[in-house]
Amino acid sequence: MPEPDPPFHTIRLDPDDESVVQVIDQRELPHAVRIHDLRTVADGAAAIRNMLVRGAPLIGATAAWSLYLAALEAADRPDRLEFMRSAAADLAATRPTAVNLQWALDRVLAAVTDAPGGSDLVALTRRAAEDICTGDAAICDAIGRHGLPLIEAIATRKAGEAVNILTHCNAGALATVGDGTATAPIYRAKRAGIAVHVWVDETRPRNQGSQLTAWELAERGVPHTLIVDNAGGHLMQHGLVDLCITGTDRTTAGGDVANKIGTYLKALAAHDNGIPFYVALPSTTIDWRITDGLAQIPIEQRAAAEVTHVRGAAGDEVATARPDTPVRNDAFDVTPARLVTGLITERGICEASRAGLSKLFPERTAS
Amino acid sequence: MPEPDPPFHTIRLDPDDESVVQVIDQRELPHAVRIHDLRTVADGAAAIRNMLVRGAPLIGATAAWSLYLAALEAADRPDRLEFMRSAAADLAATRPTAVNLQWALDRVLAAVTDAPGGSDLVALTRRAAEDICTGDAAICDAIGRHGLPLIEAIATRKAGEAVNILTHCNAGALATVGDGTATAPIYRAKRAGIAVHVWVDETRPRNQGSQLTAWELAERGVPHTLIVDNAGGHLMQHGLVDLCITGTDRTTAGGDVANKIGTYLKALAAHDNGIPFYVALPSTTIDWRITDGLAQIPIEQRAAAEVTHVRGAAGDEVATARPDTPVRNDAFDVTPARLVTGLITERGICEASRAGLSKLFPERTAS
Repeated sequence: MPEPDPPFHTIRLDPDDESVVQVIDQRELPHAVRIHDLRTVADGAAAIRNMLVRGAPLIGATAAWSLYLAALEAADRPDRLEFMRSAAADLAATRPTAVNLQWALDRVLAAVTDAPGGSDLVALTRRAAEDICTGDAAICDAIGRHGLPLIEAIATRKAGEAVNILTHCNAGALATVGDGTATAPIYRAKRAGIAVHVWVDETRPRNQGSQLTAWELAERGVPHTLIVDNAGGHLMQHGLVDLCITGTDRTTAGGDVANKIGTYLKALAAHDNGIPFYVALPSTTIDWRITDGLAQIPIEQRAAAEVTHVRGAAGDEVATARPDTPVRNDAFDVTPARLVTGLITERGICEASRAGLSKLFPERTAS
Repeated sequence: MPEPDPPFHTIRLDPDDESVVQVIDQRELPHAVRIHDLRTVADGAAAIRNMLVRGAPLIGATAAWSLYLAALEAADRPDRLEFMRSAAADLAATRPTAVNLQWALDRVLAAVTDAPGGSDLVALTRRAAEDICTGDAAICDAIGRHGLPLIEAIATRKAGEAVNILTHCNAGALATVGDGTATAPIYRAKRAGIAVHVWVDETRPRNQGSQLTAWELAERGVPHTLIVDNAGGHLMQHGLVDLCITGTDRTTAGGDVANKIGTYLKALAAHDNGIPFYVALPSTTIDWRITDGLAQIPIEQRAAAEVTHVRGAAGDEVATARPDTPVRNDAFDVTPARLVTGLITERGICEASRAGLSKLFPERTAS
């Protein structure tokens, strides 16, 4: 069954001009859908640095396509390899903690530096960027395929009534080049004709739920309802949530997951109400060196202004607190493995534990 | 020990003009502290209806003082008793579900109608309104007195390090004519020289935490830090919360509490981390007829715009979602008694259970 064309592309070559890479300026969502053209490697670096694009897989893809733009710029330069290396260093510095970013740059650079002299750098970088995008879409696709039966089983039990799925933040198509991670099983269920409905957590302080997830679900025709982060537990108490699926930024070898702040509270509520809580992830987010998420995952602290100010359409901002109010703004929290029903990876679903991960990834966990 | 003058009065007679009642326009907080003059009973009704004042005790006090204004207006009228009754009916209609409102109106009207003919209605209503305010302040005071030992015990254990208390929404001085309910033990601890620090939940969607609680704690010199509603669980996991105290809008005879949406999630996190979770309440919030909060307390659903739009200073608003985004906005959730460490009432602290409440209120629970 061929998949329909997606209603938006987070990144692609301009169909009318192969010297231009197009991204959506996600800072403008959901108020405006502005396609932003990247024409130089500097444009690409700025798009990552200024968060026009976000989400680890999409950052990686943008970095890869930026090296393609660098190759176009370097075409007539004698020092073109040096230019490429310098461009990669600039790109790496844009979001220093993004693991996928460095991985994507290394992969594209390797394709260039391993090639024989006189090779077509433009063609090589384009191929490498396309491969990275295809690979990401394939991972999303596999996560969707493995997650689908969870939704199918509930749909069968509910005999056609919509399956209510709660998600937090945006682990969606907008963060990837495919169907997203947490959203992939949902989009696949919809395409399979299953009635689904998504509770979208607003996700303070940056509102990725109201601004990104609600937008992409609307664009892809998935019924959804926006709620404040405070509401999920109440909905679960009243039988209005059948399943939770979130993403993760970093997963330990023991199955603890660090995800957007507030994920832990939803996992607690799911546990208290006997609702399955799944986390969807590409295995690249697994940090095999650590097992204790609470002790070993450092949590980024972000600016107070994210909490005291709220941004709306056209960059308008309002203050919701006195300017001198002290603020603490942790970006992530850790949900212990005991609260996670299972991990949905590109290789299948496993228990959130060392034993569970070992079965799916024996090559990484053999000691 | 005499209490210092509070830094603000939620309601009082204008010290320079006894025909004027002054309230703070709480809609403008924390950006501006605008004292609003009530000169007629219609002014009082508008202040309640338009939410210049909020919080059950303060609504009751405002209604009582509005009948004092009605008595001033009625002084030279032949139908002055009729005028008072009609004014009370108008006031009752402003917030029909507020239990304290009707109670306060009944009490002031009774003082008037029970008085002999030719009595000074102005003096009678003033006395009744003052009594209601004094009574509310005394209840806050008693809650503070009973809650203080909880904080003292932690302070002793921490040997001078600040006691970290998390609260949700505003069950503070701004909701009452005294020290508030959840905040009363905190203010009392501060006056006793105990180092306290309060984590203030933002409290989406209406931001009572960032706009009201953070403001009143600053005005009263209590160290505090604003956090998003998503953050509390993470702070508890890392040992940064010693105690939770919230208010309640309605409490069952079994100790379930209906409070601002999101309270349940914090109670779950406190339970998961072995942190005491107390609820402070005047016994007037106990609904002795019901025992199962989840099944028996109806939850108000409020407007979508509270979620999709955020208001800042000077009434400026921004949209955080597409205007067509479907929204569900439940105002309260129910925290089951099993997650509540204890209830702090004006008569003392008790277990959140029928047995616990029976000990403190034998006259209500005798069957």
